[in-house]
Amino acid sequence: MRIEEIRRVLVVGAGTMGRQISLLCAMHGYDAALYVRRPHMLDTTIGKVRALALEWMGEGRLTQSESSAALSRITTTSNPGEAAAEVDLLSESVAEDPRIKARVFAQFDRLCPPRTIFTTNTSTLVPSQYAKATGRPAQFCAFHFHQPVLVANVVDIMPHPGTSEETITLLHDFARRIGQIPVFIKKENKGYIFNAMFNAFLRVALILAASKVASVEDIDRAWMGVTKMPIGPFGMIDIVGVDLTYEIAKRQTKWVFFMPQARGILNFLKTYVDQGRLGIKTGKGFYTYPNPAFQQPGFLEGEPFLARGPSS
Amino acid sequence: MRIEEIRRVLVVGAGTMGRQISLLCAMHGYDAALYVRRPHMLDTTIGKVRALALEWMGEGRLTQSESSAALSRITTTSNPGEAAAEVDLLSESVAEDPRIKARVFAQFDRLCPPRTIFTTNTSTLVPSQYAKATGRPAQFCAFHFHQPVLVANVVDIMPHPGTSEETITLLHDFARRIGQIPVFIKKENKGYIFNAMFNAFLRVALILAASKVASVEDIDRAWMGVTKMPIGPFGMIDIVGVDLTYEIAKRQTKWVFFMPQARGILNFLKTYVDQGRLGIKTGKGFYTYPNPAFQQPGFLEGEPFLARGPSS
Repeated sequence: MRIEEIRRVLVVGAGTMGRQISLLCAMHGYDAALYVRRPHMLDTTIGKVRALALEWMGEGRLTQSESSAALSRITTTSNPGEAAAEVDLLSESVAEDPRIKARVFAQFDRLCPPRTIFTTNTSTLVPSQYAKATGRPAQFCAFHFHQPVLVANVVDIMPHPGTSEETITLLHDFARRIGQIPVFIKKENKGYIFNAMFNAFLRVALILAASKVASVEDIDRAWMGVTKMPIGPFGMIDIVGVDLTYEIAKRQTKWVFFMPQARGILNFLKTYVDQGRLGIKTGKGFYTYPNPAFQQPGFLEGEPFLARGPSS
Repeated sequence: MRIEEIRRVLVVGAGTMGRQISLLCAMHGYDAALYVRRPHMLDTTIGKVRALALEWMGEGRLTQSESSAALSRITTTSNPGEAAAEVDLLSESVAEDPRIKARVFAQFDRLCPPRTIFTTNTSTLVPSQYAKATGRPAQFCAFHFHQPVLVANVVDIMPHPGTSEETITLLHDFARRIGQIPVFIKKENKGYIFNAMFNAFLRVALILAASKVASVEDIDRAWMGVTKMPIGPFGMIDIVGVDLTYEIAKRQTKWVFFMPQARGILNFLKTYVDQGRLGIKTGKGFYTYPNPAFQQPGFLEGEPFLARGPSS
């Protein structure tokens, strides 16, 4: 298959990532089928995709007419056969469970044309864990987006040992056609690239706070003050969700049981989860929303700032 | 002592950090004595401080007259008694060796007035390792700057168990008077705050490259593409120096001997060091200078960027 022959994309899984990926493809001229397993979720999903288009318009990323054109290219369906018809590329964003993913790929292998490239948007599994179930391992590769897709516009292309060169090249070109920066992972690695670096950094931030070395605010101040980024690690966790961070930390703890600080991190996060302080979505996490403290003038300085020395 | 009574600062150690700290204090109105141990280095040091003032002027951080005023407030001397006279606050940036630091503090304890606050700019040691040698442990605290001081304007204030509350409060106010963001470290922690997070992130970047999971360029692309920072981990190592990163990694390896990737990181860095590819200072490291690839248009995309989809 040549890159020009990719015209229709099937997105399986209509969560946050799936909805963003279908709108992203549609805004770059692709026809997109968005498969929703449960028929009673169709209307909700259509509404959420429209809300996303409005959000992107509000951010100046789409004009009104581009938005209408993109939405007209998206078909939301819970009929798997209809979803799979004439599809050139499939992007899967279902639950992070290798058995569920294997089942979904096997199902769509029976329905999709033989030419269809299969990709998985997993961020914690590796494609060889369910390559066989796709029925077309040479046409199967991890193609991993970041959140939010228009801002953090990087995709990890991570083949398993059986992925063909042709598939890798096609995905590389496809990434660029949808405005994404492709980065290539030469060997399977569960942490991917950005996520591996980012998780290491977050883990240290959590250890420092959990072991009371410094306050949440001072840790964010240190990161923001040095890097000049507008947000620090705890502001970021409030976006991701304190509960999700807790779940991920619990999963990681299974294999880092030797790490003395792991228990401390879990206890620390649990106190927030138990109080319903889950981040932006509940209006309160490490900060209070809207207008969290770290976005207020003077946050970095901590108090009214005296820049004058003794003789000035 | 009240904050208004701090007027004269002694900076011990005239390396990159010491020179920056003395000019920073002087530009905020403080008299600064810069102590250079070896008399034959006096002229070189004075030249380097002047060059730094020119650099800051070039960056628009100082006007010509502010620069002249600041330079006139700095006394560079290799006479310890002269350096110590009437000093209110001492900032030490000598070699990262607790025995050398202890010797320097003991020497200046005999020369400085009893009121002088002593601070250490160490980034890898903790103040309790040489608090006793200062002769004034209650007036002694770590006060740790970041590089470059005007941009990464964060100081870690890390007391040892014997530091007085008064000293902590004074240093907090002093930090703000010299335009720095003070962050407070409640317990001694060798990694400090920003450095601890940053090192964890760098370590993962090095593991990914050393184990050939991804190329140096793709790792930087992933970081830059997601965070929108203008530089990634390998561009940063080129600034710090590949040789210094190698030395730090060697030192860390002593206690992380159980970590299977540590040997890989060392071998990886050594291939660059052996070729003299030490970073910006040798014109070549992970990138070639000036005009490294990661600052060129199109670096993120990797190749000429095709943003158009099939039907647009």
